[in-house]
Amino acid sequence: MNVLIIGGGGFLGTKLAHALTARAELRGRPITGLTLVDLSAPDTPDAPFDVASKAVDITDPDSVASLIDGSNDVIYLLAAVVSAHAEADFETGMNVNLHGVLNVLERCRALESAPVLVFTSSLAVFGGDVPDPIEDWTIPNPQTSYGVQKAIGEQLVNDYSRRGFIDGRTLRLPTISVRPGKPNRAASSFMSSIIREPLNGQEAVCPVDPDFEHYYLSPRRCVENLVRTAELDAGDLGQSRTITLPGQTLTVQQMIDAMTRVAGPEPAKLIRWEKQPEVEKIVRGWRSKYNARKAQALGLVNDDGFEDNVRAYLEDDLPSA
Amino acid sequence: MNVLIIGGGGFLGTKLAHALTARAELRGRPITGLTLVDLSAPDTPDAPFDVASKAVDITDPDSVASLIDGSNDVIYLLAAVVSAHAEADFETGMNVNLHGVLNVLERCRALESAPVLVFTSSLAVFGGDVPDPIEDWTIPNPQTSYGVQKAIGEQLVNDYSRRGFIDGRTLRLPTISVRPGKPNRAASSFMSSIIREPLNGQEAVCPVDPDFEHYYLSPRRCVENLVRTAELDAGDLGQSRTITLPGQTLTVQQMIDAMTRVAGPEPAKLIRWEKQPEVEKIVRGWRSKYNARKAQALGLVNDDGFEDNVRAYLEDDLPSA
Repeated sequence: MNVLIIGGGGFLGTKLAHALTARAELRGRPITGLTLVDLSAPDTPDAPFDVASKAVDITDPDSVASLIDGSNDVIYLLAAVVSAHAEADFETGMNVNLHGVLNVLERCRALESAPVLVFTSSLAVFGGDVPDPIEDWTIPNPQTSYGVQKAIGEQLVNDYSRRGFIDGRTLRLPTISVRPGKPNRAASSFMSSIIREPLNGQEAVCPVDPDFEHYYLSPRRCVENLVRTAELDAGDLGQSRTITLPGQTLTVQQMIDAMTRVAGPEPAKLIRWEKQPEVEKIVRGWRSKYNARKAQALGLVNDDGFEDNVRAYLEDDLPSA
Repeated sequence: MNVLIIGGGGFLGTKLAHALTARAELRGRPITGLTLVDLSAPDTPDAPFDVASKAVDITDPDSVASLIDGSNDVIYLLAAVVSAHAEADFETGMNVNLHGVLNVLERCRALESAPVLVFTSSLAVFGGDVPDPIEDWTIPNPQTSYGVQKAIGEQLVNDYSRRGFIDGRTLRLPTISVRPGKPNRAASSFMSSIIREPLNGQEAVCPVDPDFEHYYLSPRRCVENLVRTAELDAGDLGQSRTITLPGQTLTVQQMIDAMTRVAGPEPAKLIRWEKQPEVEKIVRGWRSKYNARKAQALGLVNDDGFEDNVRAYLEDDLPSA
């Protein structure tokens, strides 16, 4: 069982690599090799099998061709230009999120056997004037270029799967919180940093009101779902390979209250409230209420209260002092 | 007002060119030029303004660049590889229906002012396990490569419009019946030929059962909707530029009965019933029940009984003896 993680240097890719290393098997077979690729060669975990690391730009078809060959049993395609970046730089978003994905799919199409491919989409595919809550059959009506590019990726994974070029599965990721690391260019960045920085003893800016409501999943449960999704039986996926992941719909205030219940009253005092209209414009275009029935039927997992998310951060990601 | 029809040699493009020639104005301004392009240079109608005809392959970005300049006020993008063809030849479908559309949109993005662009999608974007009837907010879950490629075009037209690169409008066309001309490679070809050939005094093959139900619009109303759509106010389109056109849900038997009511009992005797599983597999994946609320609110038009469709064929398209 050879596994390839494209976007293996990102925070989810890194956590996924550690999870695969710890379990050392996937789809009932021992993992014999793991390759991590990103724009810069990612750090590799210690593992009881070969782990390789490479720098690959998926916008270059030749690099993709030399990366993917018949030896890749499972490919995770996590690499993407994030929302605010794709909004600010249309061409880069299209090159990576559309043409880069196409390069990977086209390379798989040229192989003799179809690899399992797990693609990460996003709930940013939803937006605009569609009824609440979002169901598995609700139209993706994204109001950002990132959302459009991800919606296109979903369609491509479906068709390449239907035609037998890949055995694809697309997960629509909720906003991940509490995300480790530093703020990034995603418009959703604050949805982790208002919890993470205070837990680290640092100030954080909240650019929206306390009643801003959104839909969240912890990195821990997200990685568990990435592993489970690779193991699903293709026959159980029905006539679409796209799965909206479970999550919790919470206001900013509910998240802060959960943090206070777990970590006491001090962290919340480090949040500075400072409205940022350009961030608010993007995130208010997203949707917050979802019925993730298909994911539940497939056995994918959720957190149980945002306290779970806070504890997962403290246990897995809090920087050592 | 300069108008460009890409796919101007097809039956809808030809009818649209005649309709524009007859009305000689669009969006409240006199038409001063009309350009028809297709893989072969289309025939041109007599018109009170300049009509040009060119051979252009939209899969070639340079040809698209030389075709489209700041002078195109309204662009109709009708060119496509049809369903059965895109299913049989994956690469050609992707090249024309995805990359060709992208070439046109990218060329528009390079212009100083955004043209009105009317793109034709199809109800073939719908399929799979989604609830009946199809609403304006139902997910496109196509079960053909053609449907996937059209669903991607819809997303692109939305995003290029939201960003101001075009003023786009996408019409999801019902199956057009009674379509003039000869059978083609579309899986839907029989849905016209079982009426058209008998009205022409010729035999036709029906590859499905009489109870096969589908959703139809006449070419006459379709062309009227293409004209009206170019004239819609962008502000009335809401947060998606995609419009499912009105149509009538009818069984094959209901269509034949309407033909008999208009043209007497002889034509129906020319239909030969001969099941074709490969056609049935594709068309049974399509959906037949739609609520076209947005189109109705925008004033787009429907036929009033399939007798209307039969009469439109007899009046507009019956070959002279």
